[in-house]
Amino acid sequence: MEAERTLRDEEATQLGDLAAQLRVDAIRCSTKAGSGHPTSSLSAADLMAVLISRHLRYDWVNPPNRANDHLIFSKGHASPLLYAILRAVGVVSEQELMETYRQLGSRLQGHPTPALPWVDVATGSLGQGLPVGVGIALAGQYLDRLPFHVWALCGDSEMAEGSIWEALDKAGHYGLRNLTAIVDVNRLGQRGPTELEWDLDTYRRRVEAFGCHPIVVDGHDLGAIDEAFDQARQATGPTVVLARTIKGKGVPDVENQPGWHGKPLKPDMAERAVQALGGVRQIRVNGPRPDPAPPVKVPAAQPPELPQYEKGAQVATRNAYGDALRALGSLPDVVALDGEVSDSTRADKFGEAYPDRFFEMFISEQQLVAAAVGLQVRGYRPFAATFAAFLSRAYDFIRMAAISQADIALSGSHAGVEIGPDGPSQMGLEDLAALRAVQGSTVLYPSDAVSCAALVAEMADREGIVYLRTTRGKYPVLYDNGDDFPIGGSKLLRGGKNDDVALLGAGVTVHNCLAAADELAHEGITARVIDLYSVKPLDRQRLLDAVRDTGGRLVVVEDHYPEGGLGSAVLESLADLAEPVRVNHLAVRGLPTSGTSAQLMDQAGIGVHAIVAAARALA
Amino acid sequence: MEAERTLRDEEATQLGDLAAQLRVDAIRCSTKAGSGHPTSSLSAADLMAVLISRHLRYDWVNPPNRANDHLIFSKGHASPLLYAILRAVGVVSEQELMETYRQLGSRLQGHPTPALPWVDVATGSLGQGLPVGVGIALAGQYLDRLPFHVWALCGDSEMAEGSIWEALDKAGHYGLRNLTAIVDVNRLGQRGPTELEWDLDTYRRRVEAFGCHPIVVDGHDLGAIDEAFDQARQATGPTVVLARTIKGKGVPDVENQPGWHGKPLKPDMAERAVQALGGVRQIRVNGPRPDPAPPVKVPAAQPPELPQYEKGAQVATRNAYGDALRALGSLPDVVALDGEVSDSTRADKFGEAYPDRFFEMFISEQQLVAAAVGLQVRGYRPFAATFAAFLSRAYDFIRMAAISQADIALSGSHAGVEIGPDGPSQMGLEDLAALRAVQGSTVLYPSDAVSCAALVAEMADREGIVYLRTTRGKYPVLYDNGDDFPIGGSKLLRGGKNDDVALLGAGVTVHNCLAAADELAHEGITARVIDLYSVKPLDRQRLLDAVRDTGGRLVVVEDHYPEGGLGSAVLESLADLAEPVRVNHLAVRGLPTSGTSAQLMDQAGIGVHAIVAAARALA
Repeated sequence: MEAERTLRDEEATQLGDLAAQLRVDAIRCSTKAGSGHPTSSLSAADLMAVLISRHLRYDWVNPPNRANDHLIFSKGHASPLLYAILRAVGVVSEQELMETYRQLGSRLQGHPTPALPWVDVATGSLGQGLPVGVGIALAGQYLDRLPFHVWALCGDSEMAEGSIWEALDKAGHYGLRNLTAIVDVNRLGQRGPTELEWDLDTYRRRVEAFGCHPIVVDGHDLGAIDEAFDQARQATGPTVVLARTIKGKGVPDVENQPGWHGKPLKPDMAERAVQALGGVRQIRVNGPRPDPAPPVKVPAAQPPELPQYEKGAQVATRNAYGDALRALGSLPDVVALDGEVSDSTRADKFGEAYPDRFFEMFISEQQLVAAAVGLQVRGYRPFAATFAAFLSRAYDFIRMAAISQADIALSGSHAGVEIGPDGPSQMGLEDLAALRAVQGSTVLYPSDAVSCAALVAEMADREGIVYLRTTRGKYPVLYDNGDDFPIGGSKLLRGGKNDDVALLGAGVTVHNCLAAADELAHEGITARVIDLYSVKPLDRQRLLDAVRDTGGRLVVVEDHYPEGGLGSAVLESLADLAEPVRVNHLAVRGLPTSGTSAQLMDQAGIGVHAIVAAARALA
Repeated sequence: MEAERTLRDEEATQLGDLAAQLRVDAIRCSTKAGSGHPTSSLSAADLMAVLISRHLRYDWVNPPNRANDHLIFSKGHASPLLYAILRAVGVVSEQELMETYRQLGSRLQGHPTPALPWVDVATGSLGQGLPVGVGIALAGQYLDRLPFHVWALCGDSEMAEGSIWEALDKAGHYGLRNLTAIVDVNRLGQRGPTELEWDLDTYRRRVEAFGCHPIVVDGHDLGAIDEAFDQARQATGPTVVLARTIKGKGVPDVENQPGWHGKPLKPDMAERAVQALGGVRQIRVNGPRPDPAPPVKVPAAQPPELPQYEKGAQVATRNAYGDALRALGSLPDVVALDGEVSDSTRADKFGEAYPDRFFEMFISEQQLVAAAVGLQVRGYRPFAATFAAFLSRAYDFIRMAAISQADIALSGSHAGVEIGPDGPSQMGLEDLAALRAVQGSTVLYPSDAVSCAALVAEMADREGIVYLRTTRGKYPVLYDNGDDFPIGGSKLLRGGKNDDVALLGAGVTVHNCLAAADELAHEGITARVIDLYSVKPLDRQRLLDAVRDTGGRLVVVEDHYPEGGLGSAVLESLADLAEPVRVNHLAVRGLPTSGTSAQLMDQAGIGVHAIVAAARALA
């Protein structure tokens, strides 16, 4: 762990003073706020003092500068340290730091969010910052081709998250020389010692085995840190600086003591600590700036030519996803990712046409979503696909992406019991509930190829988390090429003014509703059929019309468990209505098994006969 | 990769014949079904032939035998091979295999489920079988203290899942000498080559770095496999047999060919392959049986003495969770796990009282849930806890646990904006939606310590996935010790026959509803207050009464996003009602920030003033 001395004495003194300022500020702001994680900040103060003074190439007054390095606090709870940095570089005032940290309305939140223009993504759910960094680094190395570097400060506790190893694996696989993880190995987690404590050698062997270059360093030796970051920047592949540190470093009362995670120092203790650290300083750091980026050479965007389908032809919506995504490839900012199932999700159609903008994430759905988030940080428009069922693997990443206010498109294929013989493990039956509950999300579920392609095109411009649910099997094309399918809209497929009942479906159940309407017509029952392809936002006006015209007789049919899906969306939308509404809600109420699509839909009570019976009961 | 020859020629011939039979049966049943994964079965046939003939100690006619080894197909898509094994050991007939595989009503589903008594857990979402195996092995080594061995057959594609590394890390940490992962490194995933293809050396280094003993072997060399399994059984820690195999092995037309994942052979091709493999065989395997397990010495169960709380005292429900869990420790089958936040979830109270039955899973929520599933396979009653927000990390595991029909209790603490200054990354605001949508789940959200403790006690007997949501802050005890809180029930806290409006809350919002009812009383509006502590199942009768008595005027208030939570539960329950119901639904509609609990609840419109206004608007 001995490194050559690269720092002159004066430089070392300056860095030491800066580190002391960062510590003092982290202590002060958390004590003032009455909550926060000062000790987790103290351990990494020396690392960050060296980074921002000598390695991070960042134009602080112009955070959107394309040439800027990226700094991600994967250990988001060390926000006092991050905010102390922002004061040291002159973009956050002492007043803002001291008076607003963790207060209502402040951009200095308990864990970092992009409310701050220097923060790319929200962190605070451990093991996510580094995987997002992989996405940013992919953009830099393969798309932007700019020399910026991505630095992710990780905690040692989060090294127990599998997502960290998915990230390092992909960093190695893609040879991301522009990515450095800095692991603050301070030995103590929230409730006591971490699993590996200071076993740096095990960390080193793991990192190496996952294809990254480990650099073990004393995280309080400024010269050694400086040398390590130099090495990292010049490396030919991804690097991981494994820094042995002391939690609470600089405040002897709490150094290396358990029981001090997530606790501010008491005011008197804080005052003593600040004094011992030399008091409040007003150091202003002028770290390196990036070289100006060459002007952006954006290839001319051709308006996408969406695929055309013959009405009545049998086409799977997952195929339409692939066709439309390939068409969107004419927009140079569209990129696609897949979790090693692109021949099923049909993202392969894009991959074949645009191999340079397609990223294979193999079977690691957390990294799949994280990479998408990273790519959109750099201005790209990522479409990430896997089976609907397996997006559940990345649910925490999707949740956090929403807090990051990331704009990403997700496609979940093979949704519902419709998939048939593969059985319940492959069926997405809770995806509508889960994705609807994501803040600010959009949830789309087209019934045919034409509407699917149109919606895929709209996804490219939509803000937030946009989820598209596609179907495995082939179903007839219902709409004319060129029809409009605005997000938030719906389609009236059957019926007029004097309908007895309205059948509301989305995706595969729209076809069952149409067949049921035909059967009901034989019985003299006139059924309106509505395609609710936009599950969130939902077309409330269309529902109000249906309530008015049918006397409040609605059948909702979904290939999804009964909780939180299309039925709930309809009910939530009509909750405040004064007039009576009776909803007969058909959904998958038991645990499905293998079978054919038709058998399983019938068994679940979402097939044609069940819809007819439900409508009859209301009419 | 050269191993000593341990097999006599005759034994090798028998094993070769058995492997051929397994291949033939895997081909036949998938071709007959018209779907399935024969090539992924062929690669592992030699491994499994040796395992079941000479290593797996299993009493096939008595699958609940406590001494049995466990065999988990983590690569669940190789179900044709598993079912071919079941035929070979004599518990599934040729007729059942050939006529029912993947058919409606069959227990031989597309991916294995516990519909078969020899299957511990459902697999098919990759990277889950091994983590569950860790839980089973924990039970064997630390609780049962029985010499059974856990064998998990993994695919190479799933080695890209972070959860595999969480599992190996925990296997190493806990020194699970009774666990062996067998990795079928057949080089080809679904859509092409895997990330590491046949780079066995990288796998070896990764496994070693994660604390497990790698054994690299030619997966088609019967003697070498035999030797490897001998080593694995005798090892002093967890082992990983890394078997280099050929996908489609035994059928030259498809061997090592891409494009054959998840595809049955066409009938003529299958017939030729079966002939080339020697045709249909009727081999009956008699593998080793386990030594009889010693009689179970169950310590006498003392009825738990639930904690008592003084009415009006300020107690956080998360503390009540810890108190009640510690009380449940008197039942010897109750075990607890936590994701390195037990001082927050208060699972530490159990950990301190019963360290032998407490498993620290560190920051790896996927493994946390998987270990719980494994422990319940062995008959234990696991309670696993982390922050509500971070259970989202394990959502796919919870989804699969439901398909496994596992009985596990989950506790999510720090739910909602109520947590205050830590900010949105730490707030569980989609957990009710996500957990309600899990098949067969129970969702509980108590408002006070007494009801929380009572519900924790009931969780121990409840089937399926049982989720308890707890609150960070302290709130007054509302109920008397000894009150009943049946799952599916609710509590009427205020009101009688002639109420103007009903206020429905759960958890923290119950307290806001009570304060709102007081304010409304000053205005002459009589508000009924209902504590819907059982979010799923919901107390429909109580809702019907409220609708009847208030003329359908309901205010629902939840500390959760508007989609899929308590409001949806109420609406779903009342969907089919003929009489008009107007629901004013208060929920967290924007992206929250940091702040105090009260500020954030007010800002979200779920505080007292918002409830009063909502009730006033209805009354």
